[in-house]
Amino acid sequence: MSVTDSFVRNNREYAENFDEGELELPPAKTIAIVTCMDARMNIGGILGLSLGDAHILRNAGGIVTDDVIRSLIVSQRILGTSEIMVIHHTDCGMTTLTDDGLKEEIYRDTGLRPPFAIEAFSDLDDDVRQSVARIKASPYIPHKDKIRGFVYEIETGRLREVPI
Amino acid sequence: MSVTDSFVRNNREYAENFDEGELELPPAKTIAIVTCMDARMNIGGILGLSLGDAHILRNAGGIVTDDVIRSLIVSQRILGTSEIMVIHHTDCGMTTLTDDGLKEEIYRDTGLRPPFAIEAFSDLDDDVRQSVARIKASPYIPHKDKIRGFVYEIETGRLREVPI
Repeated sequence: MSVTDSFVRNNREYAENFDEGELELPPAKTIAIVTCMDARMNIGGILGLSLGDAHILRNAGGIVTDDVIRSLIVSQRILGTSEIMVIHHTDCGMTTLTDDGLKEEIYRDTGLRPPFAIEAFSDLDDDVRQSVARIKASPYIPHKDKIRGFVYEIETGRLREVPI
Repeated sequence: MSVTDSFVRNNREYAENFDEGELELPPAKTIAIVTCMDARMNIGGILGLSLGDAHILRNAGGIVTDDVIRSLIVSQRILGTSEIMVIHHTDCGMTTLTDDGLKEEIYRDTGLRPPFAIEAFSDLDDDVRQSVARIKASPYIPHKDKIRGFVYEIETGRLREVPI
């Protein structure tokens, strides 16, 4: 059985016990969380979320890319959020590589060099600040007065705020 | 107290009971999930995930954008995943708007029209297929033989597979 098959099987049990089908589309807590795809982060647990509370945006690194700006536009302008948390984490895969190195590897493998940034970084706190700064620099995001940055410690389960 | 403050307070309790700090960086189940930022989706619950199992990528719509391709490159080439699930969902905010309409609204508000797609869509199944097709069309993704598409039903908690 593939992993996908096993997850589909797990879902049957989840659906049998499911009774939260009446929640509204806009997030109840009017907040969007931007964070990493890392498998070791249970965002609902880390922040104590209830179903329906918050938009959760995740990509490699929790980097604020144009796609995150796109999602935040929809989150704020269509679905009423006004607060943003940016959360990077310790032991992040994005600190184990460089853009040049990975692009060279891909080029050797495929004959093509990706025309977009990989967004590797080396300093966690600096990159949280840079991601927050990218949101603040965007002319398309209406609500920018409640944006805060954090580092999640994979080792301890703790959130540490990054001074912006 | 801001919502962010209340989440930071919730985190203290999570950290006090946290005992999973020894998990490896690569996902144990070697799979990446691409899905929507919607607040009503608890991905861990829906798929029966354990901490450390899977990369989770989320944006507005669960659309495969260049940023998702970037993240999947890192997921597969650096962190060893080889399977992908793409999951859209019913009652998605991205079906309530059009690219032209939202861009016009942003233009009227800011005097600037975003130069990137908003990625609104109208047909769920078609858009799941299109997102899967975007991954298959990317020359940078090495493992494409186990990519499957699904619609999650917000009303029932159930996953429905989309024939590709």
